[in-house]
Amino acid sequence: MQPIVDVSPPKWHLGHTTWFFEEFLLVPHLADYKRFDDSYAYVFNSYYESMGKRVVRTDRGNLSRPSVSDVYDYRKHVTNAMRLLLGGPISDEIKPIIEIGIHHEKQHQELLLTDIKYILGNNPLQPIYRDKTDEVLIESQSHEMLSIEEGVYQIGYTSEDFCYDNEQPRHRVFLEPYSIASALVTNREWIEFMDAGGYENVLIWHTEGWDWVQKQQINSPMYWYYKDDQWYNYLLSGSQKIHPDAAVTHISYYEAFAYAQWKGMRLPTEFEWEVAQDKFQWGKRWEWTESAYLPYPNYQKPDGALGEYNGKFMVNQKVLRGASIATAAHHARSTYRNFFHPYLRWQFTGLRLAQSL
Amino acid sequence: MQPIVDVSPPKWHLGHTTWFFEEFLLVPHLADYKRFDDSYAYVFNSYYESMGKRVVRTDRGNLSRPSVSDVYDYRKHVTNAMRLLLGGPISDEIKPIIEIGIHHEKQHQELLLTDIKYILGNNPLQPIYRDKTDEVLIESQSHEMLSIEEGVYQIGYTSEDFCYDNEQPRHRVFLEPYSIASALVTNREWIEFMDAGGYENVLIWHTEGWDWVQKQQINSPMYWYYKDDQWYNYLLSGSQKIHPDAAVTHISYYEAFAYAQWKGMRLPTEFEWEVAQDKFQWGKRWEWTESAYLPYPNYQKPDGALGEYNGKFMVNQKVLRGASIATAAHHARSTYRNFFHPYLRWQFTGLRLAQSL
Amino acid sequence: MQPIVDVSPPKWHLGHTTWFFEEFLLVPHLADYKRFDDSYAYVFNSYYESMGKRVVRTDRGNLSRPSVSDVYDYRKHVTNAMRLLLGGPISDEIKPIIEIGIHHEKQHQELLLTDIKYILGNNPLQPIYRDKTDEVLIESQSHEMLSIEEGVYQIGYTSEDFCYDNEQPRHRVFLEPYSIASALVTNREWIEFMDAGGYENVLIWHTEGWDWVQKQQINSPMYWYYKDDQWYNYLLSGSQKIHPDAAVTHISYYEAFAYAQWKGMRLPTEFEWEVAQDKFQWGKRWEWTESAYLPYPNYQKPDGALGEYNGKFMVNQKVLRGASIATAAHHARSTYRNFFHPYLRWQFTGLRLAQSL
Amino acid sequence: MQPIVDVSPPKWHLGHTTWFFEEFLLVPHLADYKRFDDSYAYVFNSYYESMGKRVVRTDRGNLSRPSVSDVYDYRKHVTNAMRLLLGGPISDEIKPIIEIGIHHEKQHQELLLTDIKYILGNNPLQPIYRDKTDEVLIESQSHEMLSIEEGVYQIGYTSEDFCYDNEQPRHRVFLEPYSIASALVTNREWIEFMDAGGYENVLIWHTEGWDWVQKQQINSPMYWYYKDDQWYNYLLSGSQKIHPDAAVTHISYYEAFAYAQWKGMRLPTEFEWEVAQDKFQWGKRWEWTESAYLPYPNYQKPDGALGEYNGKFMVNQKVLRGASIATAAHHARSTYRNFFHPYLRWQFTGLRLAQSL
Repeated sequence: MQPIVDVSPPKWHLGHTTWFFEEFLLVPHLADYKRFDDSYAYVFNSYYESMGKRVVRTDRGNLSRPSVSDVYDYRKHVTNAMRLLLGGPISDEIKPIIEIGIHHEKQHQELLLTDIKYILGNNPLQPIYRDKTDEVLIESQSHEMLSIEEGVYQIGYTSEDFCYDNEQPRHRVFLEPYSIASALVTNREWIEFMDAGGYENVLIWHTEGWDWVQKQQINSPMYWYYKDDQWYNYLLSGSQKIHPDAAVTHISYYEAFAYAQWKGMRLPTEFEWEVAQDKFQWGKRWEWTESAYLPYPNYQKPDGALGEYNGKFMVNQKVLRGASIATAAHHARSTYRNFFHPYLRWQFTGLRLAQSL
Repeated sequence: MQPIVDVSPPKWHLGHTTWFFEEFLLVPHLADYKRFDDSYAYVFNSYYESMGKRVVRTDRGNLSRPSVSDVYDYRKHVTNAMRLLLGGPISDEIKPIIEIGIHHEKQHQELLLTDIKYILGNNPLQPIYRDKTDEVLIESQSHEMLSIEEGVYQIGYTSEDFCYDNEQPRHRVFLEPYSIASALVTNREWIEFMDAGGYENVLIWHTEGWDWVQKQQINSPMYWYYKDDQWYNYLLSGSQKIHPDAAVTHISYYEAFAYAQWKGMRLPTEFEWEVAQDKFQWGKRWEWTESAYLPYPNYQKPDGALGEYNGKFMVNQKVLRGASIATAAHHARSTYRNFFHPYLRWQFTGLRLAQSL
Repeated sequence: MQPIVDVSPPKWHLGHTTWFFEEFLLVPHLADYKRFDDSYAYVFNSYYESMGKRVVRTDRGNLSRPSVSDVYDYRKHVTNAMRLLLGGPISDEIKPIIEIGIHHEKQHQELLLTDIKYILGNNPLQPIYRDKTDEVLIESQSHEMLSIEEGVYQIGYTSEDFCYDNEQPRHRVFLEPYSIASALVTNREWIEFMDAGGYENVLIWHTEGWDWVQKQQINSPMYWYYKDDQWYNYLLSGSQKIHPDAAVTHISYYEAFAYAQWKGMRLPTEFEWEVAQDKFQWGKRWEWTESAYLPYPNYQKPDGALGEYNGKFMVNQKVLRGASIATAAHHARSTYRNFFHPYLRWQFTGLRLAQSL
Repeated sequence: MQPIVDVSPPKWHLGHTTWFFEEFLLVPHLADYKRFDDSYAYVFNSYYESMGKRVVRTDRGNLSRPSVSDVYDYRKHVTNAMRLLLGGPISDEIKPIIEIGIHHEKQHQELLLTDIKYILGNNPLQPIYRDKTDEVLIESQSHEMLSIEEGVYQIGYTSEDFCYDNEQPRHRVFLEPYSIASALVTNREWIEFMDAGGYENVLIWHTEGWDWVQKQQINSPMYWYYKDDQWYNYLLSGSQKIHPDAAVTHISYYEAFAYAQWKGMRLPTEFEWEVAQDKFQWGKRWEWTESAYLPYPNYQKPDGALGEYNGKFMVNQKVLRGASIATAAHHARSTYRNFFHPYLRWQFTGLRLAQSL
């Protein structure tokens, strides 16, 4: 099912990541490889316009075929062929494609979990996904503002390891002096915001954020609900009372901005975040920044279908920095740039405050 | 999945018909009956507002729980309890509820098949449902216009057997003289209409039908597509070339009306159909009529939840008469009134012409 | 301005009725007639698809040109030419076109007033249109139910005078016995309905009517508002307190139906209304009927552009009978069939109850 | 009329700028001042939530009252009172409010002209606004790329004269080396882009821009149309053939971006534009930049209603730099930041290319 356009059916994630290996590695580079099913390219292509026709995104939830079991067979077929390919000599040409295929799959692993949470969390039965999760994040460090000096800083990825095109090229940015919080905003603080009428005070919202609050009737983070004089939230391990010391999660950029306005502070830019990030702990919540998602100076879009990976989304989205509890191992980087529309809340998003000095 | 609001997921049909027996028979009438799951009422109530909260219709496709297997267990639970109930003495009070429960299930059996066709027929893989179906209806009788005399006729159900509230009370209707076709319009005739520019000629359409044609870019019946200079259509047994002698199927009321206008004729009213129906064969296609779905004189809405069954839909819908190849055995009646919005095409709908004399 | 799609700018009504005379009478029938402005046909054609391109209806409100003064000049130009035409011999061919042109203009005179009320009544300044109006209709007759016997009745227009195509042909209808109210439902009765929770009781509404109430947040007739513990309504003569004895006005079909359900009664069909109409007073309110707007048996659509006048609207609309205080003199007839979508309320609509016997 | 939400009726601009002086200067600062009409605040407030209720923006086009003549009277009343106020001693407190009132009016003078062009240019009669305009901009300078060195640059307003809050504070930005075009892209170049299939090539568009092109069926700049094998465009002085040497105008950010992609170049950031602007001519077209509209480091939102002026729009909009032929005298500044949603085209927008070195 696909309850909102951003959430894909779990079997689609599996089919799509499998298709990626088939289409970009096996078909062009494994001799005698035969596609599992010619029609799957049409079903599991996500948005690579250069690779032919595709099921438009809003229709993903209506595909009862291929079945879950068909998709597992497809996976097996492709895994076996990948073993063959990887067992032979690996040319320099295909190395970066293998690498991006793995990283692409890790991205979908993260989406898989957040999409499952959305699907279950919006089911009136509130089914439990698994008994234990580490969704409740309690940060133990002291809450303070860390000062950073003005200066020209290097931004972007520099090592020889893998990174996405949008993290490059490394370039210089001048930062005016600022401070940034050592810890994320907590549920306790968020409830103070709610109790102070934060969701009803038009003056702290963007016009567009205020329209969203009004139309969607937003009055708390996603997955929260009020029962018997108490706030609860849905977790993958089932519903439970809000933990006041945990980091607030599942908020939109609009909400993050309004909260910061209310505190007389602001969100950090993605550059401020990257420069300061080794001074605080991060990696359990995607953190909204004030930065719009834009190309770095001298950004080069890769040729061919992989060129469609990042560049074409660089308008009307906000950058998130960090990672989340749903992020695959070794997939987090201090230069990683995630990006979403400002109204989205289904990722494990959080909020860190900043201030100009 | 629920690709359009009118099409429900197959497992939902099973759950909903099961819930009907649980809610209206077992809970009130079987001693010590324990609901299978208290939350199912919320999920499987379709539109009985009197029976409490329900999942709104557009959300049916997003319920990954209860799973298909859960729903089968639910069915088994309710079937066993129904055996107990039916094994004991059956009071006069519950007899009509048992009866309507069975008829309700037959209606959903029909929807189940048409919904499956919609789901598979809109999948780009066009999966086959089963090898053989009797979808292609070739009528062998001579095509002629049957004349009916003017007069006061009795309309509506009269026997002591079951019928729906909307078929009653039996009452009198005056009909001016008319003729009605002995056979349904065929694909050959429909292709003549298409070739004559029927879908481009605004003057034969209702304003509202024309808007629909323009916005939805309609240029053929549903499930038809053009390939290699030939019209094909999707059937439950797979795609095949259009059979010119078969009855045209999967058309909206708007299209049926425009076709009749183009022929210089019209659709019969539901009363004309009912009066003439023993003079021709019917039962494989639901036939659009010119009649709006309205209450019969002195129509009485039943009390309680069952009163919500029919009456509340009596505005902005058109009556269909007959039955279809998806209709359950013994569910067809000459007084049966089906009803749909004029733009709907996913049922096995067809068209019979009529004319005033 | 055109605040909703059904309401046209006043100057457009004047331009459109003028264009009707120019297009259907002067251009084809007055020698040497020169169009005032060739582009006006494009602006002032309403929906006659046969007469060429037109400004789509939702754009009427965005035409700052031709100006009001241009349209008056256009009118003068056409009036002068019509004088010439009418001064000469009038052929049998053009007589019916002159006649329909006049009746068409009368229809727009009615719309002009209801549209002006909508435009002013939705302006936050609530401007007064004129000091005195006869909008408040207090019926003095006794409120009783008038019984009508069963039988075959003649329906439709029969005299040689003008009537619209949709009032013909005269034909026979059988009516089961019924009773019909001698007077319209009053504001006092409507307030009782509101106080009894009529707008919150799903069981008395059509499903579609209930959706409308919910989405539009309807809780009273149009132009009503509550202030200082009292219901007020906007009139063309300015806002004033609701008069309890006046006929309720500006209600939709949905509301009329729900009220009748709540009373355990129903609306009359248009045939019941026509048969009974000489037994009660009418003509100040358009009265909703239970009848869908459908063609009479053997209805013939006129040829050419005038054929687009009525027939193409015969789906998904409800018939209203009677007339209203905005109706032009000599424009009311007992066989007149007005028709609107069931949610519309900007006409002077009212409600008369009926009951099967 | 208000044909799209961004375009206001001309009389509304006059009423709104007048209301600004009344509300922020006369009511609080002129003794014994009496409002012209208490209800006007409700009609002419645009978006100052702190100042009370207002007519929502999409309803501005439906206000037939106050009439044009009423608004002129309102203007006269306020102008006379402003003369009184300005004739007396002017306190330091009100000086900045007078200043912003004048700048606010200049902004609306620009909108007035672009809105009039939209209203007339979308009228099927294509009325002429005035005989002569300077809309066709032919730049005579040589077309070359100007190189700018890397470095830390000062950005933002510094003089003591008036500027908007969003141009401050002056701060430092590091720029990598780049080049920027000495001239705007011309119609001839744009037609080459169109002829090369620019509007059909998905790979050069943002995903969001491509959706816009598809849904709106965009295939040329706004106001262009094709007739007799030739491109024309509507100008305030009437329609005429496209001048190939004139700067292309009325394009969206999406189109500007796609064009730059097609050329293998990009748009300048607003900082690159500001640093380079004294090396080329500008001021006749608003120029789209690659920059999202965001607050400068240490940006302070003013207190009170004036704080709503700029800050609350800082999400999902793009910065434009320069000015246009519709800009009031002395209203252009090299630090001026205009901003619009990326799909908007009704301003006199143009495009200057840039490139990283």
